[in-house]
Amino acid sequence: MSPFTGSAPRTQHWRHLRVGVEDGVATVTLARPEKLNALTFGAYADLRDLLAELARERSVRALVLAGEGRGFCSGGDVDEIIGATLAMDTAQLLDFNRMTGQVVRAVRECPFPVVASVHGVAAGAGAVLALAADFRVADPTARFAFLFTRVGLSGGDMGAAYLLPRVVGLGHATRLLMLGEPVRAPEAERIGLISELTDEGDADTAATALARRLADGPALALAQTKALLTAELDMPLAAAVEMDAATQALLMHGEDYAEFHAAFTEKRPPAWRGK
Amino acid sequence: MSPFTGSAPRTQHWRHLRVGVEDGVATVTLARPEKLNALTFGAYADLRDLLAELARERSVRALVLAGEGRGFCSGGDVDEIIGATLAMDTAQLLDFNRMTGQVVRAVRECPFPVVASVHGVAAGAGAVLALAADFRVADPTARFAFLFTRVGLSGGDMGAAYLLPRVVGLGHATRLLMLGEPVRAPEAERIGLISELTDEGDADTAATALARRLADGPALALAQTKALLTAELDMPLAAAVEMDAATQALLMHGEDYAEFHAAFTEKRPPAWRGK
Amino acid sequence: MSPFTGSAPRTQHWRHLRVGVEDGVATVTLARPEKLNALTFGAYADLRDLLAELARERSVRALVLAGEGRGFCSGGDVDEIIGATLAMDTAQLLDFNRMTGQVVRAVRECPFPVVASVHGVAAGAGAVLALAADFRVADPTARFAFLFTRVGLSGGDMGAAYLLPRVVGLGHATRLLMLGEPVRAPEAERIGLISELTDEGDADTAATALARRLADGPALALAQTKALLTAELDMPLAAAVEMDAATQALLMHGEDYAEFHAAFTEKRPPAWRGK
Repeated sequence: MSPFTGSAPRTQHWRHLRVGVEDGVATVTLARPEKLNALTFGAYADLRDLLAELARERSVRALVLAGEGRGFCSGGDVDEIIGATLAMDTAQLLDFNRMTGQVVRAVRECPFPVVASVHGVAAGAGAVLALAADFRVADPTARFAFLFTRVGLSGGDMGAAYLLPRVVGLGHATRLLMLGEPVRAPEAERIGLISELTDEGDADTAATALARRLADGPALALAQTKALLTAELDMPLAAAVEMDAATQALLMHGEDYAEFHAAFTEKRPPAWRGK
Repeated sequence: MSPFTGSAPRTQHWRHLRVGVEDGVATVTLARPEKLNALTFGAYADLRDLLAELARERSVRALVLAGEGRGFCSGGDVDEIIGATLAMDTAQLLDFNRMTGQVVRAVRECPFPVVASVHGVAAGAGAVLALAADFRVADPTARFAFLFTRVGLSGGDMGAAYLLPRVVGLGHATRLLMLGEPVRAPEAERIGLISELTDEGDADTAATALARRLADGPALALAQTKALLTAELDMPLAAAVEMDAATQALLMHGEDYAEFHAAFTEKRPPAWRGK
Repeated sequence: MSPFTGSAPRTQHWRHLRVGVEDGVATVTLARPEKLNALTFGAYADLRDLLAELARERSVRALVLAGEGRGFCSGGDVDEIIGATLAMDTAQLLDFNRMTGQVVRAVRECPFPVVASVHGVAAGAGAVLALAADFRVADPTARFAFLFTRVGLSGGDMGAAYLLPRVVGLGHATRLLMLGEPVRAPEAERIGLISELTDEGDADTAATALARRLADGPALALAQTKALLTAELDMPLAAAVEMDAATQALLMHGEDYAEFHAAFTEKRPPAWRGK
């Protein structure tokens, strides 16, 4: 837990997500299976607020993002979101679109790895949520569709036009964002969109195992690895090398680095403390 | 058409290119088949000026760039360009090289998708023109060769050292730009340089079909998708997310977004207006 | 040789590396085979200083970086480096980590292509040295492992969190840097981490042949290609296009460009002078 707590109370109940934490691994489940986990205003807001709370508290060392039922997430709800936004004024539309972007930034900037467990459809905002994660563990039923242009909007939604070229290259990213066609698991694996391909039905198990492994590892080192990967996409080489040097100097005074050396010397596995 | 017209007249005849426009789809053909469509000073200048005119007029919603005869484009003409540049002074050389770079910037920055139809050779400046396009539709005879170093020049010509690493990664890009070796269709597809691989002889048909589909789609949304893909290569995540939010807020007040919702509700396909 | 020499003497003997230069091709061999070429403080310092000297002198037009014995390089020595850093204060740790980063910057910024010849293990700092090279020529025994998190440190070491996403994409890079798992030759080739895959045992021969070919080519044009690839990763499109234009204008006044045209006209191969 962070030693820096203020007045803000902890949220007792997340109404729009199912959230569980077990020994440092949080599992966040989109749980509207009857709607293919279509996102609502409440779900976006809960994702934004949950990630902020978890980042402050520091009780979580890895997070799994999963979807209940037949797929991962079908994106923004056509009735509840598209319908509602048609009646919004400019300020409201900006507020909404900034919120969805804040969720992506929170996924990229939170101090623990995020593992998306993808089966079935990951469409629209669902595809971008998976894209923002550090790992995409997917089974062969997974299909990603950045279908924003299919509803008359820009393919660059929630940072997708920033992230996707950096994951699969500009050529594939242009095709995926402009055409909005589904990318099935074999192509997704080929172009680098999937981190780990599992057997059918095994995505949740594999994602949880990966998150457990990350949480039981040198968690501070992993958090810094993530922070550097995120930050150095936006930095020149010279600055990145300096940032790496400062980070390693910091971690070389940490407990886990000493623990590695002791364990190596004693020919035993290290007992990571995440410090 | 743009409501903002000034005094500059429309070019009536493009002497160095074959240009046709049909219901929002422009087809620009490099048409010196006896020279494998080698580029001349006039062809570069026409590409620069044509793209500027089309961007101003806004009567075009997608553009196909193709080559007549046995290949797409063999690059700058050895006699007419290399020979001539040997006699140029510094200011003239800068003017020439800035012009070729302006063509690439115009391809990346024009407000409609550009589809390169590639068969046979796409060499030198021809390879970079294809690289700058949003889509590369190619048949199995296509071969890309960034052969600038083969003539004693830098592989970083017309933005190639910027674009190629962002399309195929730094490792492949270094190899291609330093060695100037031909990349044939199977490798080009494997490394992400081809957007769509067609049967032999079908590149033009497929490129035209894709351009038609794009022109008949939500053209403003597609133009903004392209603009964001181009701009966000050069932006940090936080700024990209803010730019996405403003763009979506804008498009959510557009006609096509409302049309999508109406069509979805009425269970009919949307009739896009590109607005 | 550079016309700009100062007072600093040339190093007569590199104690921590084996260095040979033959007609413009330098071969730098990590030669502690009994330790899988584990790096010591002296080896890092020699790499830093050697690259600086070679960059100043300009007698070298290509460089091969190889490892003697069973593998390329197993990374920082556990006893001599990890053990020693545990006793260092903050300033010393910064000095050490800055030095390793300076080696990577020197590899990226030196004015000649660097070809890593990889067989067997390329681990930790060894994997990053190979990653920083312009070409990775590898045989089927090659395996890359960015195993920094395995010792409790950040995967972003020596610029790896900057370079790896730009070579293999953010998804693969996150997986490789966070998990530290070995990437064997077939996967390394598939994701773009290998430039040229040779038969077993042929990496050194192929790397040397490639370096020879580069050194005998238009060396100034190749050096500028490298400089642009390195610089334009950190530049926006408009600036990159301008930098390309200035570079080509410069090279169009060079000897090799004129030589290409003369050779082409006379139907003979060009005799490059690297000028």
